[in-house]
Amino acid sequence: MKKFLLIPDSFKGTMSSQRICELMREQILFVYPDAQVTSIPVADGGEGSVDSFLEALGGKKVHLTVKGPYFEPLTTYYGLIHEGKTAVIEMASCAGLPLVGERRDPSLTTTYGVGELIAHAARSGCKQIIVGLGGSATNDGGVGAACAVGITFYNQAGESFVPTGATLSEIASIDTSGRLPELAEVEILAMCDIDNPLYGQEGAAYVFAPQKGADATMVEFLDQQLRTLSQLVQEQLKLEAHDVPGAGAAGGMGFGMLAFFDATLQMGIDIVLDTVNFEELAQESDLILTGEGKLDRQSLRGKVVLGIARRAQQFNTPVVAIVGDIGDDIQQVYQEGVWAVFSINRVAKEYRELIERAPQDLALTVANLLHFLQRLGW
Amino acid sequence: MKKFLLIPDSFKGTMSSQRICELMREQILFVYPDAQVTSIPVADGGEGSVDSFLEALGGKKVHLTVKGPYFEPLTTYYGLIHEGKTAVIEMASCAGLPLVGERRDPSLTTTYGVGELIAHAARSGCKQIIVGLGGSATNDGGVGAACAVGITFYNQAGESFVPTGATLSEIASIDTSGRLPELAEVEILAMCDIDNPLYGQEGAAYVFAPQKGADATMVEFLDQQLRTLSQLVQEQLKLEAHDVPGAGAAGGMGFGMLAFFDATLQMGIDIVLDTVNFEELAQESDLILTGEGKLDRQSLRGKVVLGIARRAQQFNTPVVAIVGDIGDDIQQVYQEGVWAVFSINRVAKEYRELIERAPQDLALTVANLLHFLQRLGW
Repeated sequence: MKKFLLIPDSFKGTMSSQRICELMREQILFVYPDAQVTSIPVADGGEGSVDSFLEALGGKKVHLTVKGPYFEPLTTYYGLIHEGKTAVIEMASCAGLPLVGERRDPSLTTTYGVGELIAHAARSGCKQIIVGLGGSATNDGGVGAACAVGITFYNQAGESFVPTGATLSEIASIDTSGRLPELAEVEILAMCDIDNPLYGQEGAAYVFAPQKGADATMVEFLDQQLRTLSQLVQEQLKLEAHDVPGAGAAGGMGFGMLAFFDATLQMGIDIVLDTVNFEELAQESDLILTGEGKLDRQSLRGKVVLGIARRAQQFNTPVVAIVGDIGDDIQQVYQEGVWAVFSINRVAKEYRELIERAPQDLALTVANLLHFLQRLGW
Repeated sequence: MKKFLLIPDSFKGTMSSQRICELMREQILFVYPDAQVTSIPVADGGEGSVDSFLEALGGKKVHLTVKGPYFEPLTTYYGLIHEGKTAVIEMASCAGLPLVGERRDPSLTTTYGVGELIAHAARSGCKQIIVGLGGSATNDGGVGAACAVGITFYNQAGESFVPTGATLSEIASIDTSGRLPELAEVEILAMCDIDNPLYGQEGAAYVFAPQKGADATMVEFLDQQLRTLSQLVQEQLKLEAHDVPGAGAAGGMGFGMLAFFDATLQMGIDIVLDTVNFEELAQESDLILTGEGKLDRQSLRGKVVLGIARRAQQFNTPVVAIVGDIGDDIQQVYQEGVWAVFSINRVAKEYRELIERAPQDLALTVANLLHFLQRLGW
């Protein structure tokens, strides 16, 4: 009996990783009816991440009402895996851009709800909390979330308040004494696939605020606010984190996770692989099928396919990548442990013409591979 | 030591079969330096067919001067293989469209030179002559070639003449008594991949004469001429051949080969496979790499890949197709013996954008396959 491990990234704009797992699984069972197939749709921290973890590992959803981007009540959920020991939280679920509709204003929105979810998970006894950064509508440097776990921000007048992107410079002092004590016992991992710093031309405001509704003037203003926050954190909490790669993720939430939650920022794929106990799965598997929308030189920096190949290499388990486009100069992927790369492109057409047929093309590409392996007596 | 058999069709408009063989061979020797590689670039009967046979089997070229499309002297060549027992003649070499330049007029052009080449080969002791039909500038139903081997055509006045496309209806009688006696000892095979009849809407004139320079009036006239020829052959030679699939190939040369040369019309791939002794090669090989520009439902009718797969199946030798586009509904190719099909399309772009990079894309696709096989311990 063959054991297959399916662990693809999504093909952005074309197919979710869940859908890809389904298509692959269907083809596998067609050729190897008694195969054992383990599906781990890769989450990137954005929308769908909780569902990905639950599909991979089983678990349950915890529903609760927290504050939305504009402090409005919002019912959402997080996921519990590992028998309740680990919580998976999508920042997008309560601070996400789709939640604000046309009312996009990163100077006013908050990550408060994210803090509430974290607090709830910590109080429930979770020992590990995974927070997916990504898809946020905010630029508050994570201070909203910090407030929700008991950290207090005071203005010059000595009044406590919940700062947002526009009012970070009004913070005069930070009091962490009220921070939820359970958090000290919890490991917090933030899924973060970008390496932008907190502020500056490559920072959260300049790079990401425009898509959240900021015009040029607001971008400059928001960037200045983040600088002020960083300076205050450095003075009062003795932490210099603005240059940590990923500090600028999700409107500075990366920075906030470091400053207020003692979190570790990691590549999504590494968190996924650790969480599913990848090494054990890889060792048991006869074939690992992975993939991503485009395999190119950028992939070498540690996107899904290479992340998997590097960690699977020690077990000599075949790693085959099913991808959209294949870039030039990818010779190195073979050295890093990828056994073969197959593009789903079957006809010479432009991307927009291929989107609709992508699921079928992927299925046929996998079917061809399996047929070949079967005929080779594999 | 691995033995590879390379036997691809050309990718029309992109790469010749010779070029594809070279690219494949280079990649194979990179991964398996001591591999034994046999290259059989598939000829389709058109330009390059002689070179294909010579590259596959070795042999020599025989140069001689014959009549060109307008009865002008033309120095050309045919190939000798199988130690001089078999001649390979390209009709295009002395009656081809590129030879007439701007002077395209299928009512005036002749296949006389083709007959001269056939006669020369027969007199030289060849026991088999392969004639590649394809790329012709003529519409003479093969009567020019017939004249060159001693068949005489008379008009109403009893004068012998060499008819062309425009004067077939002037033939009053056909005298085959002067036909070169050596031809009786020779097997003549015509490579013919189309199945058009001699005349009618699907016939030589209607379908192919326009690209040879005929306007609508001339097409109708030429079609009528072919009808007259067919009727005369039926009456005087007692042969009804106008409906034989391929009779309409190369301006009715298919018909002429049947009527005046006792030839057999066959698919090019079958003639190639017979000539190279394919079954023996297939049995000895560890892997057969084939391919064509597009693998689709039409391929099932017997183009290169399927022709090879069907004949290789009895030996259980892996047949892998490297192709341009892959059409839908090709499930049957697996049943017919193709082990796997890989498209060289690596990026989602239109065909015209991919032409230039096709050689590299093909090389990378083959490299990926070989790397995979090597890692599988093959």
